[in-house]
Amino acid sequence: MSKSFDDLLSKVSGCSKKKVSVAVAQDGPVLEAVEEARVRGIADAVLVGDVSLMQPIADELGIDLGNYEVIDEKDMVTAARKAVELVHNGEADMYMKGLIDTKSFLKSVLDKEVGLRTDKTLSHVCVFDVMNHEGLLFLTDVAFLPYPTLEEKVSIIENTVEIAHACGIENPKVAPIAAVEVVNPKMPVTVEAAELTKMCEEGKITGCIVDGPLSLDLAIDREAAKHKGAEGRKIVGDADILLFPDIHAGNITYKALTHLSDCKNGNILTGTKAPVILTSRSDSKEVKVNSLALGAVVAEALKK
Amino acid sequence: MSKSFDDLLSKVSGCSKKKVSVAVAQDGPVLEAVEEARVRGIADAVLVGDVSLMQPIADELGIDLGNYEVIDEKDMVTAARKAVELVHNGEADMYMKGLIDTKSFLKSVLDKEVGLRTDKTLSHVCVFDVMNHEGLLFLTDVAFLPYPTLEEKVSIIENTVEIAHACGIENPKVAPIAAVEVVNPKMPVTVEAAELTKMCEEGKITGCIVDGPLSLDLAIDREAAKHKGAEGRKIVGDADILLFPDIHAGNITYKALTHLSDCKNGNILTGTKAPVILTSRSDSKEVKVNSLALGAVVAEALKK
Repeated sequence: MSKSFDDLLSKVSGCSKKKVSVAVAQDGPVLEAVEEARVRGIADAVLVGDVSLMQPIADELGIDLGNYEVIDEKDMVTAARKAVELVHNGEADMYMKGLIDTKSFLKSVLDKEVGLRTDKTLSHVCVFDVMNHEGLLFLTDVAFLPYPTLEEKVSIIENTVEIAHACGIENPKVAPIAAVEVVNPKMPVTVEAAELTKMCEEGKITGCIVDGPLSLDLAIDREAAKHKGAEGRKIVGDADILLFPDIHAGNITYKALTHLSDCKNGNILTGTKAPVILTSRSDSKEVKVNSLALGAVVAEALKK
Repeated sequence: MSKSFDDLLSKVSGCSKKKVSVAVAQDGPVLEAVEEARVRGIADAVLVGDVSLMQPIADELGIDLGNYEVIDEKDMVTAARKAVELVHNGEADMYMKGLIDTKSFLKSVLDKEVGLRTDKTLSHVCVFDVMNHEGLLFLTDVAFLPYPTLEEKVSIIENTVEIAHACGIENPKVAPIAAVEVVNPKMPVTVEAAELTKMCEEGKITGCIVDGPLSLDLAIDREAAKHKGAEGRKIVGDADILLFPDIHAGNITYKALTHLSDCKNGNILTGTKAPVILTSRSDSKEVKVNSLALGAVVAEALKK
């Protein structure tokens, strides 16, 4: 079981070497992350993009493109299509966004012929190793689904539980969080949290334990949970997965942790045939490399 | 201008000595906080409550009730009424919750005869001094108004700007935050953020600069703000006040910072005639003392 990002990184070394396919790879920060992932043995890469633009960037960064499989394709949309097809065909294990807008990138992910579409809803998961907390925290959805419906929340849970399993957490505890830990009909998110809890009890959501609504302290702080009364609860400060009410709560919390705390984190898009790495320009190299490591661990689990 | 909680505490020493009136004071953690505030010169206290219960608690904690004005009143509701009336009449400068449920306590705050009601909407502000960030951050509303309307958001801004002014921040920058920094009609909170910005430009909200919607990184991280493009924006990572979309986003962020970061914080209820300290049982003594210090600074400003 991975209790920290370092555990997760060491887990990668036990996997067969993975390969990431990069769409429109002529992007400095992405090339730097891919190079570090290669050097650290996390993953090899196929770089699909405009070589006339890629080469000078690589030269400036001291990256030898000879270490990579490179596919020259000037057109962005075609490059993304070629890159995702490699993953679709099993020639690569994960798919990463380069210098292409998110909309076009997602279009390639969802392409019916060559993409990574499944019957599942796509969602985003962010895995955190953060100060003052033991164990990994899986935050979802902080970046993709704006106002998830109850049905979408079920999909988010299922997607994220799969990622937690890949990280060695056998029966993750899922906390649908809110401002309060009691059901209040005036707060629809608390009603939905209770419904999700019931669905899990009835076996409609499996592979995990769901208990909500929970305030964040009761979800992640054992002392606070014991102090405030944990009677009859299945989660007592020991949640693994935090399900957010909506993208605002999720995204603001995500950014509060990355900017105002000390943490490591990696993010992937899930609900796809293979892990999709969709980091943003503002994410550091470390976040991109961590995301590749997370992707490698998930890809290994999906193969089984 | 207070740039940290230590600045704020040293500001208190420049104020005339304040007095806090405590409703139903037979509460260990509250007495401990009040004692520390007294010893550190932050505020004296009037303790209103059941002395037969208060005395043994004080004895056990080694607190000499002889250092306090004590008003013996066994009935909780009457004790709260007596305690709030002292503030109403100007005999005390701020009002604090003891061992009384929040609903009854708020009823005393809003009492038309002896309470602290004004024509303003009540709101909650939490003042943070947090790692990786220079300057105080005012978070609102993370605990009181569940789903503020546009009108309520105007009141929240006005209330919080008054607190920022009291802390010496002359023209605070207010960021209505969201998951994104662009207006999206499918995300009502972004539309409201833009409306608040416009209202400030038109002089309908004064004493501050409002600029939203903003994602949290663009609101508080100068580097991120410059990197992502700050053109035409009035806030470039230098926000003082963070206005949250709703109580879920606010409360989860508040608890993420207090549990998963390193910070000092103090909270008060505002929109009242005098500062109201409504900390929760789970708040540490430090938070309660910081809240009293914040209340003292605000009470000093209100006198002027």
